[in-house]
Amino acid sequence: MNPQYKRLDRNDAAVLLVDHQAGLLSLVRDIDPDRFRNNVLALGDLADYFGLPTILTTSFETGPNGPLVPELKAQFPDAPYIARPGQINAWDNEDFVAAVRATGRKQLIIAGVVTEVCVAFPALSAIEAGYEVFVVTDASGTFNALTRDSAWRRMEAAGAQLMTWFGVACELHRDWRNDIEGLGRLFSNHIPDYRNLMSSYDTLTQMG
Amino acid sequence: MNPQYKRLDRNDAAVLLVDHQAGLLSLVRDIDPDRFRNNVLALGDLADYFGLPTILTTSFETGPNGPLVPELKAQFPDAPYIARPGQINAWDNEDFVAAVRATGRKQLIIAGVVTEVCVAFPALSAIEAGYEVFVVTDASGTFNALTRDSAWRRMEAAGAQLMTWFGVACELHRDWRNDIEGLGRLFSNHIPDYRNLMSSYDTLTQMG
Amino acid sequence: MNPQYKRLDRNDAAVLLVDHQAGLLSLVRDIDPDRFRNNVLALGDLADYFGLPTILTTSFETGPNGPLVPELKAQFPDAPYIARPGQINAWDNEDFVAAVRATGRKQLIIAGVVTEVCVAFPALSAIEAGYEVFVVTDASGTFNALTRDSAWRRMEAAGAQLMTWFGVACELHRDWRNDIEGLGRLFSNHIPDYRNLMSSYDTLTQMG
Amino acid sequence: MNPQYKRLDRNDAAVLLVDHQAGLLSLVRDIDPDRFRNNVLALGDLADYFGLPTILTTSFETGPNGPLVPELKAQFPDAPYIARPGQINAWDNEDFVAAVRATGRKQLIIAGVVTEVCVAFPALSAIEAGYEVFVVTDASGTFNALTRDSAWRRMEAAGAQLMTWFGVACELHRDWRNDIEGLGRLFSNHIPDYRNLMSSYDTLTQMG
Amino acid sequence: MNPQYKRLDRNDAAVLLVDHQAGLLSLVRDIDPDRFRNNVLALGDLADYFGLPTILTTSFETGPNGPLVPELKAQFPDAPYIARPGQINAWDNEDFVAAVRATGRKQLIIAGVVTEVCVAFPALSAIEAGYEVFVVTDASGTFNALTRDSAWRRMEAAGAQLMTWFGVACELHRDWRNDIEGLGRLFSNHIPDYRNLMSSYDTLTQMG
Amino acid sequence: MNPQYKRLDRNDAAVLLVDHQAGLLSLVRDIDPDRFRNNVLALGDLADYFGLPTILTTSFETGPNGPLVPELKAQFPDAPYIARPGQINAWDNEDFVAAVRATGRKQLIIAGVVTEVCVAFPALSAIEAGYEVFVVTDASGTFNALTRDSAWRRMEAAGAQLMTWFGVACELHRDWRNDIEGLGRLFSNHIPDYRNLMSSYDTLTQMG
Amino acid sequence: MNPQYKRLDRNDAAVLLVDHQAGLLSLVRDIDPDRFRNNVLALGDLADYFGLPTILTTSFETGPNGPLVPELKAQFPDAPYIARPGQINAWDNEDFVAAVRATGRKQLIIAGVVTEVCVAFPALSAIEAGYEVFVVTDASGTFNALTRDSAWRRMEAAGAQLMTWFGVACELHRDWRNDIEGLGRLFSNHIPDYRNLMSSYDTLTQMG
Amino acid sequence: MNPQYKRLDRNDAAVLLVDHQAGLLSLVRDIDPDRFRNNVLALGDLADYFGLPTILTTSFETGPNGPLVPELKAQFPDAPYIARPGQINAWDNEDFVAAVRATGRKQLIIAGVVTEVCVAFPALSAIEAGYEVFVVTDASGTFNALTRDSAWRRMEAAGAQLMTWFGVACELHRDWRNDIEGLGRLFSNHIPDYRNLMSSYDTLTQMG
Repeated sequence: MNPQYKRLDRNDAAVLLVDHQAGLLSLVRDIDPDRFRNNVLALGDLADYFGLPTILTTSFETGPNGPLVPELKAQFPDAPYIARPGQINAWDNEDFVAAVRATGRKQLIIAGVVTEVCVAFPALSAIEAGYEVFVVTDASGTFNALTRDSAWRRMEAAGAQLMTWFGVACELHRDWRNDIEGLGRLFSNHIPDYRNLMSSYDTLTQMG
Repeated sequence: MNPQYKRLDRNDAAVLLVDHQAGLLSLVRDIDPDRFRNNVLALGDLADYFGLPTILTTSFETGPNGPLVPELKAQFPDAPYIARPGQINAWDNEDFVAAVRATGRKQLIIAGVVTEVCVAFPALSAIEAGYEVFVVTDASGTFNALTRDSAWRRMEAAGAQLMTWFGVACELHRDWRNDIEGLGRLFSNHIPDYRNLMSSYDTLTQMG
Repeated sequence: MNPQYKRLDRNDAAVLLVDHQAGLLSLVRDIDPDRFRNNVLALGDLADYFGLPTILTTSFETGPNGPLVPELKAQFPDAPYIARPGQINAWDNEDFVAAVRATGRKQLIIAGVVTEVCVAFPALSAIEAGYEVFVVTDASGTFNALTRDSAWRRMEAAGAQLMTWFGVACELHRDWRNDIEGLGRLFSNHIPDYRNLMSSYDTLTQMG
Repeated sequence: MNPQYKRLDRNDAAVLLVDHQAGLLSLVRDIDPDRFRNNVLALGDLADYFGLPTILTTSFETGPNGPLVPELKAQFPDAPYIARPGQINAWDNEDFVAAVRATGRKQLIIAGVVTEVCVAFPALSAIEAGYEVFVVTDASGTFNALTRDSAWRRMEAAGAQLMTWFGVACELHRDWRNDIEGLGRLFSNHIPDYRNLMSSYDTLTQMG
Repeated sequence: MNPQYKRLDRNDAAVLLVDHQAGLLSLVRDIDPDRFRNNVLALGDLADYFGLPTILTTSFETGPNGPLVPELKAQFPDAPYIARPGQINAWDNEDFVAAVRATGRKQLIIAGVVTEVCVAFPALSAIEAGYEVFVVTDASGTFNALTRDSAWRRMEAAGAQLMTWFGVACELHRDWRNDIEGLGRLFSNHIPDYRNLMSSYDTLTQMG
Repeated sequence: MNPQYKRLDRNDAAVLLVDHQAGLLSLVRDIDPDRFRNNVLALGDLADYFGLPTILTTSFETGPNGPLVPELKAQFPDAPYIARPGQINAWDNEDFVAAVRATGRKQLIIAGVVTEVCVAFPALSAIEAGYEVFVVTDASGTFNALTRDSAWRRMEAAGAQLMTWFGVACELHRDWRNDIEGLGRLFSNHIPDYRNLMSSYDTLTQMG
Repeated sequence: MNPQYKRLDRNDAAVLLVDHQAGLLSLVRDIDPDRFRNNVLALGDLADYFGLPTILTTSFETGPNGPLVPELKAQFPDAPYIARPGQINAWDNEDFVAAVRATGRKQLIIAGVVTEVCVAFPALSAIEAGYEVFVVTDASGTFNALTRDSAWRRMEAAGAQLMTWFGVACELHRDWRNDIEGLGRLFSNHIPDYRNLMSSYDTLTQMG
Repeated sequence: MNPQYKRLDRNDAAVLLVDHQAGLLSLVRDIDPDRFRNNVLALGDLADYFGLPTILTTSFETGPNGPLVPELKAQFPDAPYIARPGQINAWDNEDFVAAVRATGRKQLIIAGVVTEVCVAFPALSAIEAGYEVFVVTDASGTFNALTRDSAWRRMEAAGAQLMTWFGVACELHRDWRNDIEGLGRLFSNHIPDYRNLMSSYDTLTQMG
């Protein structure tokens, strides 16, 4: 028996965004803030683009942890929004688990702040509950590279798949012919090198 | 059968602090000394805060290895304290194993200096003896990143879970409502960015 | 005689943007592309915000070097735009020097791609011609750190002042009371950490 | 039962070169361009030297992704060349899979751009289809080290073996006596340090 | 004429602490937060220990920039405390300059957040005004290494001397015989490696 | 069933030193040459100190690869010395395998140059042949960190244990009481920080 | 009086290549060997392209230092070639200085191995003798970054200008219109990113 | 007037070794301990080899700072040895300055621990007193790269020349013909890559 390729499927995947809050973001130091901000917004955009059920959750928004990043809040006005009263692991919150179940999806794409807690805890719980878990490593952040590595290894050992937002988008899209312009716009908006390729291409072909 | 989430439980966990001695600390070069000192003291504080049984052990305190870090000694005046007469692997010392058994706990949180010896050897022995082992990577130190990586991989391959003190604290605490002030103080004392968040928050809310 | 503080003055400064072209940007590898893109756009925004005379120049836009970054083109529709027919050093182009002279300014804020050529050559020429030169290091890019360091040292040895877009903005603004909202918006749009501070502040003060 | 050594065999291996296109190469930032170019050409040379069936594939050559690197095109004029009409995962293209099957080989040596998509997707599919997969890590490139690590871990967890072009060449060659001069030339052309050893050796022995 | 050694003199030096505010500290990413916090408090302790006139200043404490780090506020209850109403360069604030003048000192030890603005601007102004300026590089922080280097070079080119808190303390103290215990305590409290040396020494000598 | 702790035993271990040749060492760039030389000699010293059967092998000593490092040759004058006529994988050489078998040991400690070939190939073969393999990562070297990581992962996936010379020595020694002076001398000769601890200790205790 | 722009002039510049020998190159560890080899050959190509008088010198070619890199020897068959009998500083060799004088040039472009000796010594001597010195930093190599930085600072303090081969080429060429194809070929051969830009451009324009 | 080349002269240079003490060495973290130990001993060997007057000084040898590195003490049994009773700057100690004056030398080669204090302070004093100062950067160590850079810049701004032990040796030796074997032995003992070159050379030439 060969190992199975557990492949993301846009009809079976949901997105969980955990604790991307303005205060907690000041704790993130394993990735440059410009790059991190871009990755988080790209993940939001791809969830939107592929029409994936998306769940937002926060921890103590009115305390030092601060409010959810406004762009995410604005992008998913109708998404389940679970302001947890105290549970550190979002999966310990019944409303959160209920919202996940309500999606009917079996593949969970998770990102959050900070990686070894807000991402790893629900990821490990979800795997135990039978879900396929895909961690978006570049839209999750934490104190430093050492703590990040520990968190990644723990999740990986439990069977989580580590991906980045770009890999997630490509695996969901499958074939450019499904929508060249839409995916191209997503990439152009969040990958400066890709945007440059397109600018050069447009200039040259418009000249012809 | 899904993989089980082996989750730290404050009623089933004990802490083993191995050879955090003043002389040996001069060998630690895979982590900045300011950060390392902070992490070790944070681990001590969390063991104290959660009331976890804690065991101290040292190797040749009166020789070049030097005395145990005084803060740890002071923090656990009644803890079992095993000054090993020669065993490099603490688990080869019967008193140490007896002290572990006496806790009645099955989850062992281990940190020490240097990682590939004083942490890895007892970790591998404890796993063989049937314990669940959680290595606190950021409160353990060694010569350089290369030796650290080799040690982490060896422990991980045997089933140890790699965590950091922050993840340990959060997984033990479970829910902020158990004690907001106590956990907040622990974080504020050992995470400068968190302290700053709280300072700003206090200033703004006191103004209101 | 004390050394004089050569301080940027919004009434005496002009901005020169040299060869920020889509193709040439693929050569820039001494800075992360997300951060670099942000810095270049921030410099454009500050030039706009402070109403500084701004000059654009490019080299072979219709060849492999590619077109000017569209955002810069759009932001300065009426700025002098010198598409150099071949001169590598923009200062060797009479139209460019004439455009600089026409501003009547004596302080030149320069950024471009690549640093050791498109920035350094006109910077050295401008210094020789009697201008005060301020190089925006984080809105200029090149092949790698080694070539960047060589370029910085050469310009510095000739008397250029090395700054970043943030320092330039602060030195031009002088006093927050001149316009709190405008400068705050500039920072919020280009410094994720600052944006987060403002989000948290707004949430807390709106709750009060 | 001991673990089996899955060893590359020149009679059972084929090479898949995926999307080494001039435009996409500008996205590669996890490896220095001089080194990357050298590694890719070395992989081409070794495929040629060992007479391995080689398959080329590209994605939208006439768009922003750009043409295949000309040297690879020139080196394999008769190789199957699949210009995919839209499939992101080359394994989703029937012609590609047919070309792989036609080689009759069971060991696939894969390299491409970018690693987490163009390499990882067909690698995971090929493993599922029963092939042994060897990823040439240093002839594959992507956005940055973080995305690279995620891709490597995902493929490794599925059973892919990570190698470099040098290890591939040595494992295929088995014994220097099969052809000292040919392998020596391959190394001398692509490993500057090895070339220097040979230059020194030649000078000294020609003097004797 | 040989170059003069401009040497710090405890009878002629004053300390300026500029904008070490809880919010602004979240912008500091060119130095690890544990280390930075330690350095800032060490500078406060040395100012206290040597009895140097110390001046505190902040920018918009009740806004997003946040309050002064509480420890500094507590350590200098009687120091001049200038909450600037808007001036970005502290030297543009008359009260601040008056406070500096009132010390009667000619050597200014400056640290602050962020380096290229809150440190560099008053440093350049003070040099122009005839002061000797010593920048405490490791108690000043900013966005990243690139912006830090630009700031250091600009100040250095103007004649500022770059030092660290440890060098400042040693140069002020001159001779251990002035007070072994006091300086030893300062070092032990802020240099973990030094603390370890002292712990080992005390253990060994107490055993004798 | 708990995972077994496969522990090095001085009565069951042998050391294989593969291709530490003067020419090949110029290819090693993943570790500083001062540190690497020290580690290789430390491994030789520990093999000698513990009286482990040791096997030397080289590839084309009289060609560009150069002679075995003279210190290793001198240290093991009576050890089996297999100058391979062409086999790249030492395990493909019958004399080498015979020498390994003749030791009667089941634990193989392997180090060599370059890691992904001269170490990984015999390590994978030895595992397949039923041996326990311990790779000394810090006495093995290769082209760069990327190729090193690929080699480590491949060996690890096959069941090799990654260790460093220091961990090997400690695991073999078990208890300081077996010989304090001998192990202390080994450490003092190859760990500068340990040497310093001993120098300080000796000075203080001799004063007493 | 403004600082003068000392600008490279193809009619007044000569190139000195010092000790790029196969053995000495194994000492170079401050730059990746693939990149370094490329830079050295690029410098050779540009000297050739601009027709600059070029002087080669070596130290003990028949000893451990090894022969001059063959490509350089082949490229300049008629250049003065000074095999120094023992002088470490090439400028201490009368034939070398005579060869320099014979060029009649006043601008010396110097590169070599190792930087702090073979480059720095003749650079300092040439400056003292009244020449303008331009060090090609990326075609010079040494033991590590620390020794490189010391060498650069010493030369810079004496007035040498630090450049890279790309900057040298651009400053000599002045205007693309002098020869677009020739300079383009030089860049395409030695800058992979530039080659890719040209490949994409050619493909698109040939399609039109 | 051209800048003068201040060149080390073996008849006019002396070596000052400041506080290379076993305890203080544990503070050195800006350089790998294996490399640092090698550099310090190499500097001792070269002082010995060139017969340069050498002066040793220490600070509180019987306290936590620990004893002078034993090898240095053994190598210079008859050298002036100033155990300072308290002065932090060695130049504040009259015996030290008298010992320097007694050498009659005007060029001072200085190394020590830690760089920004034990090296920088006497270096600045010596420059003021009219000496030419050469700092051996790689035989001096301190807390981290940030503090090192500050120290280097301060000394450089005052006119000190930054060199490494290798550059010092080469500049003193001038011509290999003065003693090929002696200098070769110095290099072979302290530069592993050079030792390898010599091993290969010897093997090949002895075969001839």
